[in-house]
Amino acid sequence: MDTSETVNYGRLWARSVPDPVDFSTVWTPPRYDFTAGIPDPNLLPLSGLAQAASEALRQEGKELAHYPSGQGHPGLQDIVAKKFSVDQGISTPADRVLITNGAMHAISLVAEVLLDPGDLVITEEFTFAWSLRVFERFGARAFTVETDENGMVPEALDHALAALRQKRLRPKIIYTIPTFHNPLGLEVPLERRQQILDVASRHGVPILEDDVYGDLRFEGEPIPAIAALDKGRGNVLYVGSFSKIVAPGMRLGYLLAPPQVMGRLLACKLDAGTSAFSSMILYHYLKDQRDDHLEEVRLALRSKRDALVGALGEGLGNRARWSHPRGGMFLWLRLPQWVNTYTLRNKAENVGVSYVPGIYFSPYGKGENCLRLSFGYASRDDIHEGIKKLTDVLRAEGVLKSPTTQSRSKK
Amino acid sequence: MDTSETVNYGRLWARSVPDPVDFSTVWTPPRYDFTAGIPDPNLLPLSGLAQAASEALRQEGKELAHYPSGQGHPGLQDIVAKKFSVDQGISTPADRVLITNGAMHAISLVAEVLLDPGDLVITEEFTFAWSLRVFERFGARAFTVETDENGMVPEALDHALAALRQKRLRPKIIYTIPTFHNPLGLEVPLERRQQILDVASRHGVPILEDDVYGDLRFEGEPIPAIAALDKGRGNVLYVGSFSKIVAPGMRLGYLLAPPQVMGRLLACKLDAGTSAFSSMILYHYLKDQRDDHLEEVRLALRSKRDALVGALGEGLGNRARWSHPRGGMFLWLRLPQWVNTYTLRNKAENVGVSYVPGIYFSPYGKGENCLRLSFGYASRDDIHEGIKKLTDVLRAEGVLKSPTTQSRSKK
Repeated sequence: MDTSETVNYGRLWARSVPDPVDFSTVWTPPRYDFTAGIPDPNLLPLSGLAQAASEALRQEGKELAHYPSGQGHPGLQDIVAKKFSVDQGISTPADRVLITNGAMHAISLVAEVLLDPGDLVITEEFTFAWSLRVFERFGARAFTVETDENGMVPEALDHALAALRQKRLRPKIIYTIPTFHNPLGLEVPLERRQQILDVASRHGVPILEDDVYGDLRFEGEPIPAIAALDKGRGNVLYVGSFSKIVAPGMRLGYLLAPPQVMGRLLACKLDAGTSAFSSMILYHYLKDQRDDHLEEVRLALRSKRDALVGALGEGLGNRARWSHPRGGMFLWLRLPQWVNTYTLRNKAENVGVSYVPGIYFSPYGKGENCLRLSFGYASRDDIHEGIKKLTDVLRAEGVLKSPTTQSRSKK
Repeated sequence: MDTSETVNYGRLWARSVPDPVDFSTVWTPPRYDFTAGIPDPNLLPLSGLAQAASEALRQEGKELAHYPSGQGHPGLQDIVAKKFSVDQGISTPADRVLITNGAMHAISLVAEVLLDPGDLVITEEFTFAWSLRVFERFGARAFTVETDENGMVPEALDHALAALRQKRLRPKIIYTIPTFHNPLGLEVPLERRQQILDVASRHGVPILEDDVYGDLRFEGEPIPAIAALDKGRGNVLYVGSFSKIVAPGMRLGYLLAPPQVMGRLLACKLDAGTSAFSSMILYHYLKDQRDDHLEEVRLALRSKRDALVGALGEGLGNRARWSHPRGGMFLWLRLPQWVNTYTLRNKAENVGVSYVPGIYFSPYGKGENCLRLSFGYASRDDIHEGIKKLTDVLRAEGVLKSPTTQSRSKK
């Protein structure tokens, strides 16, 4: 091999290309997995999907000879539009729906059409880490707004938007997860949703509402999406997913967007269409079995939320605080201020327990004493055992000692 | 609705966002479709895929609970690596393979990691229009090199690269389709492939080899891919697809890339993974039935190529020239210089015949008298009937008259 004529890629990279990802390490699943927002593998509707595959391929398989239409499988678009219309009471035409390769793809497309380097994206104090990574990829920075146990504080949002505009900083998107928040496990009450929408609209900044967990309510009355409150004005771009209600491995999600945004999204979507194969199978599955499956998933999640909250109460008592989610897959645990959940992670992993440290969800690296626990994947039994092991680790760290002892144990 | 508080997206678009796509018009399939490089719907392996779906979901369905690994389904990576190793005689580790949402996605990722606004991409005189669109999206311009019936001319490539570098213009990629070229229907002989690789390597410019039709040879001896001639040096990025051998609606393709490029591609691939669902089903299908299916597809394509060439000979005689493809799906038709295939298209569509005008494949809008005919989709009978209708249209235009009469009929 004549290496003198080997291409030197170092001279060729695009200026904005990110550092390379290390793809040599192989991920091994932890024994007690509280990490990802993913479903229980034992509850996946595998035989339903297999049956739907036969049916879809027989009925509309020949369509696979074509490249998929730009906005995706019409049946799946229709299911999304009808679901939104029924759940939210806002009639939604199917051509407002874009089917994407998962919600991340939808969020990336929105970022691509709106963000330039130096732009700002408003977020909650803690938010979904992958979305932050996407905004950063397009050169934007996240700017967080005060967030309490009811979500983003509207007065703080108003104040922040006014201050930023005065400084000629350009907030382009308000990215929010109002329902079963990732990672905080909270939901924003109706009145506050309306206030957030009003503030955003007054400042002329669109809201990107990430609602991938909204279908997973197991407690309490449904609250309308911010996109529903917008009543078709187009001020809210709404992202949903089939990853949480069917499976992440499907890679199918969707975006509701007004026509002027849809045209731009399609101009940036250069992948020759979202899989008609997965889409037609998912469509045949959902049209017959969505409601039954969702009911089963919700019951399981409630029971696992109870197991998690029970195990935390038993192990930590009043030495920590945690959210009490009424849906979704996440619980946010706040430990005493002096605890560092990032350095603690190794000790937890040594006993087979994985979680995500709080700092991963803050654009500013805050939340050192916090961590996110997912109750989507692990079984009830694993939740009990795993949290027992985690609280043992915390006990060994001195978390359960009285405040006076704590400050000593810090040294 | 208070429109005073409607977001004005016009003030918010990212600077580089393309013009919106019109998504209101509904595409109606033409009666005789010679347009797209897509397979015959009657040859899609639908029952094989349904069977593979059952098997895959039963055997590895639980994996769908996880987000797919960054490089894609390991079984599918393995099939690609083995196929390349066997077909091309170059041992290829599976971790050189990235599974993508179709070949367009692979080409987009390569463009993303390498192209800045103002960069150049070297192409054949005529090339795949969608790739041109992708390069343009990243701000790059195409620069064509003289192309004859054996593909890109190596001496012209050498000359162009030298001249561009002297002018401080940056050619970042040589994009080429050496096997069953789209749209020219040609294949580059072995010796010339080696020359193109040598020239590119000497100038330090990587080759992006688009080989999505390479599996569809129905005549002649296989010629090694340029990527195979490179012998693992990493100077060639190689794109393949399952769209042409299984179905475009699957949206699965792949890229072979050296490690330093793979790490960057993965850093830009923010879609949380390529569908494990489609991938596992395709894997189960291909591992058992790939060879038999390919054999059937190749026989059908040969017979349809024969039908197309026969019908053209009957209808046009020596009044036009066309390529004689030994694989793939495309034939390039050159009509007399005065014919304008763009304006002629309406007349053809009026009799139900669709084709792609030559100018669509030239970055400079050349090829007015040329057009591309695909023989992938239409049946043998439709090819005969459709080409008869097309030659009737051409006859009415005066294409079949003698040269003297032609110049009169132009007025």
